Amino acid sequence: MTLPLRFDWRKLEKFCARVFERAGVPQESAAIIADSLIQADLRGVESHGVVRTAIYLKRVEAGRMDPAAEIRIVNETGAMALIDGGNNFGSVIGTKALQEAMKRAKDFGVGIAAVKGSNHFGTGAYYALKAIAQNQILLVMSNASQTMPPTGGVRPFIGTNPLAVGAPAGEQLPFILDMATSVVARGKIIVASQKGEAIPLGWAIDSDGNPTTDADAALAGSVLPVGGPKGYAISMFIDILSGVLTGAGFGKYVNNMYENWEQPQNVGHFFIALDIDKFIPIDVFKSRMDDYIRSLKEEPKAPGVKEILIPGELEFRQTDRLKAEGITLPLKVVEELAEIGKRYDLELLEAAYQTT
Amino acid sequence: MTLPLRFDWRKLEKFCARVFERAGVPQESAAIIADSLIQADLRGVESHGVVRTAIYLKRVEAGRMDPAAEIRIVNETGAMALIDGGNNFGSVIGTKALQEAMKRAKDFGVGIAAVKGSNHFGTGAYYALKAIAQNQILLVMSNASQTMPPTGGVRPFIGTNPLAVGAPAGEQLPFILDMATSVVARGKIIVASQKGEAIPLGWAIDSDGNPTTDADAALAGSVLPVGGPKGYAISMFIDILSGVLTGAGFGKYVNNMYENWEQPQNVGHFFIALDIDKFIPIDVFKSRMDDYIRSLKEEPKAPGVKEILIPGELEFRQTDRLKAEGITLPLKVVEELAEIGKRYDLELLEAAYQTT
Repeated sequence: MTLPLRFDWRKLEKFCARVFERAGVPQESAAIIADSLIQADLRGVESHGVVRTAIYLKRVEAGRMDPAAEIRIVNETGAMALIDGGNNFGSVIGTKALQEAMKRAKDFGVGIAAVKGSNHFGTGAYYALKAIAQNQILLVMSNASQTMPPTGGVRPFIGTNPLAVGAPAGEQLPFILDMATSVVARGKIIVASQKGEAIPLGWAIDSDGNPTTDADAALAGSVLPVGGPKGYAISMFIDILSGVLTGAGFGKYVNNMYENWEQPQNVGHFFIALDIDKFIPIDVFKSRMDDYIRSLKEEPKAPGVKEILIPGELEFRQTDRLKAEGITLPLKVVEELAEIGKRYDLELLEAAYQTT
Repeated sequence: MTLPLRFDWRKLEKFCARVFERAGVPQESAAIIADSLIQADLRGVESHGVVRTAIYLKRVEAGRMDPAAEIRIVNETGAMALIDGGNNFGSVIGTKALQEAMKRAKDFGVGIAAVKGSNHFGTGAYYALKAIAQNQILLVMSNASQTMPPTGGVRPFIGTNPLAVGAPAGEQLPFILDMATSVVARGKIIVASQKGEAIPLGWAIDSDGNPTTDADAALAGSVLPVGGPKGYAISMFIDILSGVLTGAGFGKYVNNMYENWEQPQNVGHFFIALDIDKFIPIDVFKSRMDDYIRSLKEEPKAPGVKEILIPGELEFRQTDRLKAEGITLPLKVVEELAEIGKRYDLELLEAAYQTT
């Protein structure tokens, strides 16, 4: 039987949710995790999509993630809450943290949720999009296990600690920045490795510190920080907020999801939610955003450039396209998902895209 | 008479404060402005040092800055305050905003001061250092007039909107990130222009969009964002928080300090203060910071690298050195200051460094 490579996003989401449920994840949590993975695929961020199903499951099965763990507020003062995720799924903890930050923003103008005891929480955009829908601005960051050297170093010490920021607009598309602090997201190198493709020079160094175009050598070595010392410093401040301040791991104490099978990851996150209407009327804000975005898009273009893009714009278009045309997955990922389906008595084939 | 090139930092600070006072700036404000300028010189950030005295004065004298303006809270909810600077000096407004943010952080865990109606506020590190001294973490950002093209554009549209983050440590030096969102701070190109030096390729494009090493051509053209689309997006989110959200200028509505003599700058800032002790005990935080910093500094080094540096470390050393050895200024700046001194009946010579 030939495996399909193109999937209907709704059906694939259902398949993933069911897989997680059968692996012992509560239904509500399974829905969040599947939603987060599929949204990443739809936005074209394959590295954070259903490709992660296998590793998430593996950590649950190995007892290194606890889908039943209680997510608790361990400390709170007015506008801030410190949350212990108890080693539950990152996106489940992140969703709870987002709610706490947004609730506080409604009362105090700004709300903070600082999180320890978490795991890989998917894309930051996942949370930013939810905040935007409630007319809030969100800054969200997370630390991650060691993948980049500090400036002047030769081996991984800091993570590619991501930063995401979302802000709504009116008639224009919202602003969504979601970036790793590396030249490129490490996930892109993972995808290149899975596809057997080379990577551009400048993305990474090998384990001896030499520049490399070999994706596997890069994964064994270090990703480089964006803008040299600037990316190093941004990654470090994200770690200070997400890790040092929260009680989560930081630097070498954030455990690798793929390699450490003895301990939980102990990832930390930091959510800052701003309730726009407390600053200026939301309609005024949105029309100012529209003005800003329109002016940017009307700027003269460099030769060969068709269009000035706003951060997040491509991903919105990609989502529309893939919702209509289906999500195409690499064979390796499809095989993995089919195998997982078999283990949990679920049929991946049912999620195949049907031309109408 | 030969002009001195080396100055005693205390005496130079006094000279600057007196100049501003005689130009009609209230004594308390003049002290803040001088403190901010001298601290920048001491940290080796010449671009934000006493070199700015002339342009600040020129804007006051032209009626484009109002040193007597009231700085008012126009809107507040719990942990946030929206402040209208009334077109006073940026560093005076920034100092007031910092106090407001820090006061709220003490009560609510986090405090926000969002600022409109301001001017160039000096370095972000100026505020971060004050927050650290009170055991708070500070994120501070500001927008700025147009100097960088969006990705795909050819002319300046967004500012090199700076981001600064400070966090205290225990035995180690504090963490201080203070960066422009350009490959390098535009101020460095201004300094190169004043010194008549070339700039490295990749820092900027000329007004036709071509790469250039000519500092003057770069100033007439555009500085480039750090990391391409990532720097563009970071600059934009800083503008959204500092400008779109506050009611200040944003994008093309932030007026150029050097070129626009018709209108105030209407710069916006955004301060986020976090009271560390509300998250985890301050001593625990500091010892975790020490552990983090020590581990980083002990990392193996790339060939030719003597030392792994923590963001801000060089600037602390520079400060110690220049406090002892004096601040050396370029002749052009000294001539300008001497001329200003004459205008206000003050003798720059008295600030000269004396070997003991």
